[in-house]
Formats: sequence, structure tokens, C-alpha cells
Amino acid sequence: MTTCVNFSYDELQPGQQATYSRTIEQRHIQLFAAATGDTNPVHLDPHYAASTEFGEPIAHGMLTGGLISAALALVMPGPGTVFLSQQLRFRTPVRVGDTVTIELTVAEKRDRLRWVSLQCRAVNQDAKVVATGTAEVIAPAARQTVELAEEPAISIQTE
Amino acid sequence: MTTCVNFSYDELQPGQQATYSRTIEQRHIQLFAAATGDTNPVHLDPHYAASTEFGEPIAHGMLTGGLISAALALVMPGPGTVFLSQQLRFRTPVRVGDTVTIELTVAEKRDRLRWVSLQCRAVNQDAKVVATGTAEVIAPAARQTVELAEEPAISIQTE
Repeated sequence: MTTCVNFSYDELQPGQQATYSRTIEQRHIQLFAAATGDTNPVHLDPHYAASTEFGEPIAHGMLTGGLISAALALVMPGPGTVFLSQQLRFRTPVRVGDTVTIELTVAEKRDRLRWVSLQCRAVNQDAKVVATGTAEVIAPAARQTVELAEEPAISIQTE
Repeated sequence: MTTCVNFSYDELQPGQQATYSRTIEQRHIQLFAAATGDTNPVHLDPHYAASTEFGEPIAHGMLTGGLISAALALVMPGPGTVFLSQQLRFRTPVRVGDTVTIELTVAEKRDRLRWVSLQCRAVNQDAKVVATGTAEVIAPAARQTVELAEEPAISIQTE
């Protein structure tokens, strides 16, 4: 059981930073495809991907969006955050085996509605920028400790 | 085997529309959680979710982002599209059983780099707006027919 402590609105200050990392395996790309229905072969079919400019399967760009959202939901501000908006610019594709680190920095806060904006940067293990953007959230009113759910046990049948 | 025909840059005109729909099941939320690591119990734990303002599990907001990305990748412009940016505002949570329809409208095009912007709207089965935004892409140079990959065969072990 993993517990997770959030940051309340009052605890967040401009400049404050937090990170969240995930090494992207082929299975994460398959899971994202099955969640969204995006079975574009550039993500799933190594033979097809070899014929593209990328040369090998790449992750869906929005999987990086999902990692940013996970960083906001689990790390800063953490559980209780309401996600208002996300702006995202994709810069470099993510390949299987890449470790993507999401770097969040509190940009602005406004007491009305506990509104907080955060700069979001995703970098890979070579410090190459994968994506950049800005998120707007409503931060939690109070500090809270939440027990995270277990990651679902999933098996993927390969041919 | 599903084949998919894209729209080339030349075929896209401002005002042109396309849609992509998906009914969100609990398994899609589990798959998105396992892809991104976002195991916030508001998505996965019905007991915890009942204690929140939502009353029941809701989908990750960025799953809707993934549906928009699927619509761009599979429908319009379709295979060969390069995703440059996405702006997204979340308006209403998606609940299990909701059918989310992504409505894409070509907004602008610029011959330099085959740049195209599209308005994106996600609505549920009650015509309630789930999310709105704008995407920027590089459209494919030529019409192309692509065989989509099979959706991976996945089983989720429930307790």
C-alpha cells in the first residue's frame, strides 16, 4: 500500500518544484493504445515504424501528457487537485526504454478559487526536452494523506 | 484488419469536420492508470470515490486528451500526422459508461510546414461538453492508406 501526501493551496509557493519519473516500456504504449483506441502502427508495429522517419516505435505524444497529469495528481499538488487546463508542446518523441522525468514548477497562485498554474517540462534520460507546457489546477484546500490504489494487475497477450 | 485512409494537407479545408467516439469502461481507466502510473483512488477505488464530490470513479482528464490524440491520429488528418501542440480545458468529468465523442474542426492552415490547427471538442452522450481545446499538427504530405495494428489483447485481473 502506497500512501501519498498532498500539498494544500497554502503550502504551494511560486518557484516550488517537484518531479515524477517513469521508464516507458512497450507495454505502457500498448496499454495507452488499448485505453484510447489509438492503434496507429507507428506506436505498435515495429515493422511499420521502421518505415517512418522515427525508425522504431514511438510512444503516443499524449502518453507524456498522461505522465504530467500523473505528476500533478500524485506529487504536486497531489490528491484532491482538480485539473482545469493543460497546454502542451511536443518537442522530441519518446522511445521504448526512455526514462521521462516530469518537472513541475509552481508559477502563479491566486487565492480566489485556490487557482494555481504550474510550468511543466518533460525531459528524457539524455536531458533532451520531450515536451513543455503549462497546467492550471485548483489546489486542495487542506493537507490530506491518501492511500493510492494498487496498479491493476494486467497481462498482455503477445503473439 | 482495419485500414485507415488519411487526409493530406491539400485535402484539408477550414471548417472541415470529423468525429471519433469511444464508450469509456472501467477497464479503459485501469489501462490508462497502468500506462501512466496515475493510481489516484478517485479513478480506481469506488469506495474512495464515493467520499469525493464526484460520488463515483471518474476517468483521468487526460484520457480525454488521449481520445483527442486518437481522433487526430486515426481520423483527421490521420496516419502520418505529426502532433505539435495541444491546448485543453477540462469542463465536466467523464464517468464509467459515458460515450465521449471528439469533434474536430479544421481552423487554419499554413502552407509553410503543412501546419494545420484544429478546434477540438469532447462531448458526452448528453451533449454536455467534457473538454475543449486546440491542436496544432503537421498534416501528411500525401494521401496514404495504413493498416492499423490490432488492439493488444489484454486481460485485467480483478480481485
